[in-house]
Amino acid sequence: MASSLMPSACSTPVPDSGLARRMFDRLHEIGFDGRGMTRPSYGEGENLAHALFETVAREHGLEIRRDWAANLFVTLPGRMRDLPAVMTGSHVDTVPCGGNFDGAAGAVAGLLVLCAWVRAGYQPMRDTTLIVTRAEESVWFPLSYLGSRTAFGLLDAPALRTPRSDDGISLREHMLACGAQPDLCGQAAVLQPAKIDCFVELHIEQGPVLLEADVPVGIVTGICGSTRYRSVTIHGQYAHSGATPRRFRSDAVMAGADMMMALHAAWRQVEAGGEEMTLTFGVCQTDPAQANFAAVPGRLELVIDIRSRDEDLLERMNALVIEQARRVEAAYNVTVDLGPRTRSTPAVMDAGLQAEAKRIAASLNIPALSMPSGAGHDAATFAGQGISTEMLFVRNENGSHNPDESMEIGDFLCGVRILEELLRLRAARP
Amino acid sequence: MASSLMPSACSTPVPDSGLARRMFDRLHEIGFDGRGMTRPSYGEGENLAHALFETVAREHGLEIRRDWAANLFVTLPGRMRDLPAVMTGSHVDTVPCGGNFDGAAGAVAGLLVLCAWVRAGYQPMRDTTLIVTRAEESVWFPLSYLGSRTAFGLLDAPALRTPRSDDGISLREHMLACGAQPDLCGQAAVLQPAKIDCFVELHIEQGPVLLEADVPVGIVTGICGSTRYRSVTIHGQYAHSGATPRRFRSDAVMAGADMMMALHAAWRQVEAGGEEMTLTFGVCQTDPAQANFAAVPGRLELVIDIRSRDEDLLERMNALVIEQARRVEAAYNVTVDLGPRTRSTPAVMDAGLQAEAKRIAASLNIPALSMPSGAGHDAATFAGQGISTEMLFVRNENGSHNPDESMEIGDFLCGVRILEELLRLRAARP
Repeated sequence: MASSLMPSACSTPVPDSGLARRMFDRLHEIGFDGRGMTRPSYGEGENLAHALFETVAREHGLEIRRDWAANLFVTLPGRMRDLPAVMTGSHVDTVPCGGNFDGAAGAVAGLLVLCAWVRAGYQPMRDTTLIVTRAEESVWFPLSYLGSRTAFGLLDAPALRTPRSDDGISLREHMLACGAQPDLCGQAAVLQPAKIDCFVELHIEQGPVLLEADVPVGIVTGICGSTRYRSVTIHGQYAHSGATPRRFRSDAVMAGADMMMALHAAWRQVEAGGEEMTLTFGVCQTDPAQANFAAVPGRLELVIDIRSRDEDLLERMNALVIEQARRVEAAYNVTVDLGPRTRSTPAVMDAGLQAEAKRIAASLNIPALSMPSGAGHDAATFAGQGISTEMLFVRNENGSHNPDESMEIGDFLCGVRILEELLRLRAARP
Repeated sequence: MASSLMPSACSTPVPDSGLARRMFDRLHEIGFDGRGMTRPSYGEGENLAHALFETVAREHGLEIRRDWAANLFVTLPGRMRDLPAVMTGSHVDTVPCGGNFDGAAGAVAGLLVLCAWVRAGYQPMRDTTLIVTRAEESVWFPLSYLGSRTAFGLLDAPALRTPRSDDGISLREHMLACGAQPDLCGQAAVLQPAKIDCFVELHIEQGPVLLEADVPVGIVTGICGSTRYRSVTIHGQYAHSGATPRRFRSDAVMAGADMMMALHAAWRQVEAGGEEMTLTFGVCQTDPAQANFAAVPGRLELVIDIRSRDEDLLERMNALVIEQARRVEAAYNVTVDLGPRTRSTPAVMDAGLQAEAKRIAASLNIPALSMPSGAGHDAATFAGQGISTEMLFVRNENGSHNPDESMEIGDFLCGVRILEELLRLRAARP
């Protein structure tokens, strides 16, 4: 066996681009809904994707394990199995009508690394584990990083009653249908931070920054946290559109428009002050059963999503959301029910891993850009546990969470090569 | 028979309050959808309501006629049948989940008058006709006053292809299913303006003006026209909410909010200048299949409804809608497809009929208020044909186009008494 510390040129593991293509093709078949990918959390598509990873891992002789929440762990055993393990991975669920690369790219990347090591006959010093998580897309269950947090024992038993957004069936029922054992919740964490050396997650970039900069790979500096109101309802009063003068109206749509414009103006001001955040009202709808062109709208539903790496800014924006809700209540004679707030904490990436990733990219002549992650990722869970964590982004056209995600396989392989060297460097440490 | 010009006290026809209650109860049974009334234009509920009026009219020995569009005509023959007829009436369709009085009150009022005349043995000089129209609520077919306009031969044959909003089935097919003969469209008008002396329509007030003024009856001065865009679509670009900085966004919801706020500000300005109009965005919705809290919204659908008695103001507002659509296209990097514009013309009420109605109300000690109609009505079709037209409003709580319409039967009978005397006055003229 070649030295794991100084592998010779001929034994350098090379990711299998054919396997990458086959995995993405097969994942596309599994998730295609006629327009994009729909693999709900703890749903059939996610199950099939997990089974696909398990099959390929078994073919390569890798160790397979599942925790009670049905997260999948694929391990290449190290020579010293008691050392803290090196980990990588991502999720394979998607938003409704999403794309084929969000999440999946990171899981495939980890599999490619482990399979390349097996083929090259490389055995690391440390256990090296790919985690294929469950339920990262919180559009299904309004809980951030559900699968990875559960692996660390961070799920409270009452959360098992949370209904899935599409069918109203509880997380517990969905877990049972996927072969998980939710009744073990709270008994023991599967992952212990002290037994993990580091976690590196590859992911497509979900915005246009790398594309605009003409760079294939991003080296992530930090992950945004969020403040969200997923079920804001503005209650007004339906009334005849022609016969109801303005002073008598309780117009839910105008109250919503005013609130959105005021918060948007605050966003511009924050940016003008040099701070970074995003603000999005992704859903905005009147009630299809009652709203019509001849009635003042009596109800509007909104969602509010605010993200930043700055926790203080998130709190200031949250106060402004509440302030604006109260303002439009008075101005439009409506009531604004903000509903529950959900949130996630910003995460810092490990400076040492960032520096190593930069050095490796340079040595491989792969252009790379340091950048923040506006989106949340499972990596935030690991960072939140005090584990040295890093993310690599791969250039991707048309954003994510839509059917038009477009990642070049060449860019992907650039990211996998950096990931492979970074994991190998860490896994080789005695 | 008592003189029709100076009826003696004992022979004054009295509207039958019991019949009124039975009609409204039966109409409620016909249209109830579990929450409100749903009687679609050229649908089963409208058919059953028409059949109910026909049954009661036959029981009173009144003449029954239907035109090719299945409008119902109920006539008490006059002594001189060649004289232009006196007409009254309204519609019995409803918006989805509407109330039980919008339209129905006017049709029941006309029936009560004719039945009272029959019971009192009163025969007018002129034919007196109740028209129960079809398809007044243009939420089903986007054509104003479809039934009454058709009776005057104002429907173009191509309009028969218009799909109904709920099921996409054409007007022609729906007409056929209701026993109408749409293939006669364009051959002859059923109603000729020269053969109509006047038209008086009773209707619930659809706003809160009479309620606020504590007056049971309104005497209408004019009917608003409208400019409408029933299918505005703002096309943006779906993108990850956290990973897409503001400068890269094409946010359909923010573009819509900005456009609505700008037009709303213009409305305030118009009112500050002493002009009257209403502006309503009754429907505002992202695409339920694609929109989610984690994506910049790539699509928003809106409706725009502008009403005024001032045709020039309607044109100025229409120009502003187009100007604002172009402005937000540039500001938010979206495209705004306004879709087709539909419209109706403002109508003036007859000064003589207004004066008579006021005099009658005063003689009956019924408080009455002169007021415009913000809503459109079949009466606008008659006025548009140069026919002397008037409307009477009845106080109604909670507005219209919703399940909570609430008209007191006492207020209704006040309106019917004024209607009865006004029709009798006109029908008695040789």
